Amino acid sequence: MAYLIRRSLQLHGCESHLATARYLSPVNRLSPASSRPFRLLSPKTRHYSSTRSADVQNGDFSALKVQQGRLMDTLHQTCAFGTGKRWGTEPTETGMSRLALSDSDKQARDWFVETTKALGCKVTVDAMGNTFAVRPGRREGPATFAGSHLDTQPSGGRYDGILGIQAGIEMLNVLKDHQVETEFPVGVVNWTNEEGARFPMSMSASGVWAEDIPLEQAHNLQEVGGGSATMKSELERIGYLGSVPASYQSMPMAAHFELHIEQGPILETEQQKVGVVKGVQAYKWFTIDIHGRDAHTGTTPLKSRADAMLLAARLITHSHRLATIHGALASTGILTLSPGSTNTIPGHVSFTLDIRAPADATVEATEADLKRDFAALAAGDDVDGLLAHSTPGKPLSVDFRTDFVSPATIFHPDCIAAVRASAEAVTGSASLVRDMTSGAGHDSVYASRRCPTSMIFVPSKNGVSHNPEEYTGPEDCAIGAEVLLQSVLRYDRLRAAQ
Amino acid sequence: MAYLIRRSLQLHGCESHLATARYLSPVNRLSPASSRPFRLLSPKTRHYSSTRSADVQNGDFSALKVQQGRLMDTLHQTCAFGTGKRWGTEPTETGMSRLALSDSDKQARDWFVETTKALGCKVTVDAMGNTFAVRPGRREGPATFAGSHLDTQPSGGRYDGILGIQAGIEMLNVLKDHQVETEFPVGVVNWTNEEGARFPMSMSASGVWAEDIPLEQAHNLQEVGGGSATMKSELERIGYLGSVPASYQSMPMAAHFELHIEQGPILETEQQKVGVVKGVQAYKWFTIDIHGRDAHTGTTPLKSRADAMLLAARLITHSHRLATIHGALASTGILTLSPGSTNTIPGHVSFTLDIRAPADATVEATEADLKRDFAALAAGDDVDGLLAHSTPGKPLSVDFRTDFVSPATIFHPDCIAAVRASAEAVTGSASLVRDMTSGAGHDSVYASRRCPTSMIFVPSKNGVSHNPEEYTGPEDCAIGAEVLLQSVLRYDRLRAAQ
Repeated sequence: MAYLIRRSLQLHGCESHLATARYLSPVNRLSPASSRPFRLLSPKTRHYSSTRSADVQNGDFSALKVQQGRLMDTLHQTCAFGTGKRWGTEPTETGMSRLALSDSDKQARDWFVETTKALGCKVTVDAMGNTFAVRPGRREGPATFAGSHLDTQPSGGRYDGILGIQAGIEMLNVLKDHQVETEFPVGVVNWTNEEGARFPMSMSASGVWAEDIPLEQAHNLQEVGGGSATMKSELERIGYLGSVPASYQSMPMAAHFELHIEQGPILETEQQKVGVVKGVQAYKWFTIDIHGRDAHTGTTPLKSRADAMLLAARLITHSHRLATIHGALASTGILTLSPGSTNTIPGHVSFTLDIRAPADATVEATEADLKRDFAALAAGDDVDGLLAHSTPGKPLSVDFRTDFVSPATIFHPDCIAAVRASAEAVTGSASLVRDMTSGAGHDSVYASRRCPTSMIFVPSKNGVSHNPEEYTGPEDCAIGAEVLLQSVLRYDRLRAAQ
Repeated sequence: MAYLIRRSLQLHGCESHLATARYLSPVNRLSPASSRPFRLLSPKTRHYSSTRSADVQNGDFSALKVQQGRLMDTLHQTCAFGTGKRWGTEPTETGMSRLALSDSDKQARDWFVETTKALGCKVTVDAMGNTFAVRPGRREGPATFAGSHLDTQPSGGRYDGILGIQAGIEMLNVLKDHQVETEFPVGVVNWTNEEGARFPMSMSASGVWAEDIPLEQAHNLQEVGGGSATMKSELERIGYLGSVPASYQSMPMAAHFELHIEQGPILETEQQKVGVVKGVQAYKWFTIDIHGRDAHTGTTPLKSRADAMLLAARLITHSHRLATIHGALASTGILTLSPGSTNTIPGHVSFTLDIRAPADATVEATEADLKRDFAALAAGDDVDGLLAHSTPGKPLSVDFRTDFVSPATIFHPDCIAAVRASAEAVTGSASLVRDMTSGAGHDSVYASRRCPTSMIFVPSKNGVSHNPEEYTGPEDCAIGAEVLLQSVLRYDRLRAAQ
């Protein structure tokens, strides 16, 4: 890409102890077979040589090139674990269906552990299956992490979560390529069940790590779809119920950076390359239960009905209206009804409602209006002409249950600054970089409660995500990975300078 | 009940060969153990004695009393086969869940065969599992049938279908109690899969009998819910794949009378006791498939969405409006969506639509408007203010598939007359009887295509049906059973007179 200023790596004999990122000379190159390369380097044997030392001090990490081919090949190869729906003819044109703690998730996890160990990391698995791969630095201390997740939606794509982990692996590869020694440890973390698709609480394992979700509650989450498996039973089954407590106190992080696809259309529409994510919008998840009365479709006059499906249809229609009015988002992703027969009016319908907005107050105001209007519509009162041309029926009951609350999140200025500097350096242009608020929840939300955090967004084709056709071009993936690498190194340098 | 003029049975020595229904004197009483009582009576040994002969000629069958206690006890005892959801504390206060050709349906069928054989019937099972129990008459010829079904909805009650069969059994009991010999055979038929709840085509087996549904199509119907069983495989499994062709040509019926609960509120509201059913309203079943695009709920602006669930909600809301405008009924009993995750906008929704009206033309006009307006709403065009206060999104596609068509049915005047005369005789008051059009489909629809047919309705408490709490009081059940008995005998008498 034109805006990527790629320079060949030139190593010269010039040492700087102030530089956190250090390029090791070929004479100190480690055997690829060694699993603990940096531990083998005593201070006496260290030999730093690079003409880049001054550049590094100024934040120029441009010699540390992400290998786009390696990144993408590895990403697609590991998508063999849980391949989903085919949408095109090319080998990589399938989606993903890698539900948390499934057999395919286990395969991906095993690959992650093996690969990071081979790249010199020590791997720790905690009681939620969160897997921390740490590459030693010059000094002891908590690692600066790149993190994301390897689980996917049941009908997901190849980039959501996966790209962030693969970019972390590529970071380890580049550090190894160039024999970089960081000041403090750096690492990659794979968080469990970020999607919340199989066990219905998204980011449940980073939430436990942050001590915002009790371990027992997360362990007891039952899989959706009627199965009896829980998170704990599945962690045990696939061998990822670690002995280390799932807590920021047992596994502290110095910082957390997450590369992620935007999952929305803004970067593509604005023809920009990198989003500097300053925070995450607020959202709440609700379950709405409607109780009416089962009745025969042919013999029950419209006026005698308590039709739960008709009321659900009106409420969903209305939730979109209220979202529009408030500048929020409203979505129903799950709806079940009973008894479920063509000629029986459903007496019970249950559906989910996901309400989001940049500010907590907007979500609260939307929720208040939803509760008021849902009750009115259930009682048979019209709201905004929704009951026009309709036959009044019998009243129904509506229960409104809050399943999950994620307040608006503000990321850390140091991390945001590291991402912005890296994004401008990698793209070579501030105009290709924009500040953004994430529309989706991410493990970075929980990470940010216990350590400085920020995120990096790269464009999603057509803004599509949670869909097999989710796509981010290989050059955009490589840009994102390089911004991630630089952000971690800039933060490491910042720590060293303090 | 006050309006039921119950007279004690008095038998006197008076013979009438014109009377089709004959009361056998005690001296000819048959052993209860005999399975073929009437065949044992040669003309020489017949001795008719009844003071009722003149009454019988005039249509007064009031001596033939239904035993309410026996009828209800038997009904509730057989509800042990497939007991459903409990709704009250009394032993009989549960619903039914006896899906067609399930293990519990087999139990009910076995009971039916055993019982009717013990009451002197010859039992024939056809290739659809339809089970015909025929009690011989004085003459050879097709039987006049009482018929209905023993299968239920998954969350059904104790009366829909079941009452009609139990009243048929009670008819056989009363005929035996009074040693009545009919002119022609009479019988009881249990039709298979009337509900269409397990195998998604209602009245599929009477439809095959009428040669309106091909045998192979019905045999290949696959059970709903993802199982692999077909009607044929289940008929084989439970031993009800009969060797007699399922056809009115192999098993002709002289007439078909069906006692059924109203399943609606009209009789109760009007404080009437019996509905004389002159026909069945028209209906069509459709499946609507919506294809939009899966997308992330948090990152996809409203304007960028192709939200299949939102469109489904609007279409269901609108179907009710159009039904109101046309004086029709519209109902959605099944809705499925994919992928089914709280934070993924569904890209696909499929739902059923059941449209009914007394006249075929009304159903057709409603269907035409639905197709026009569904296409407009899918394209993003407003219809009747439904899109007010909404954010325009991306267009979606809508497929509109017709699954089933049941044109309006007109029953036979002779059968209607027999039911009306019987209803007035049993209730003692024309004001307690009303003409009705059935809102629901019944096996009588197909029966009526191949033989004279009518139906008898009795009140449904609160108009509730297809619900565990479906209820018809024991006295109303007994009135219905007595009207059924008299209707069959009146029709037999009519045949004899021709």
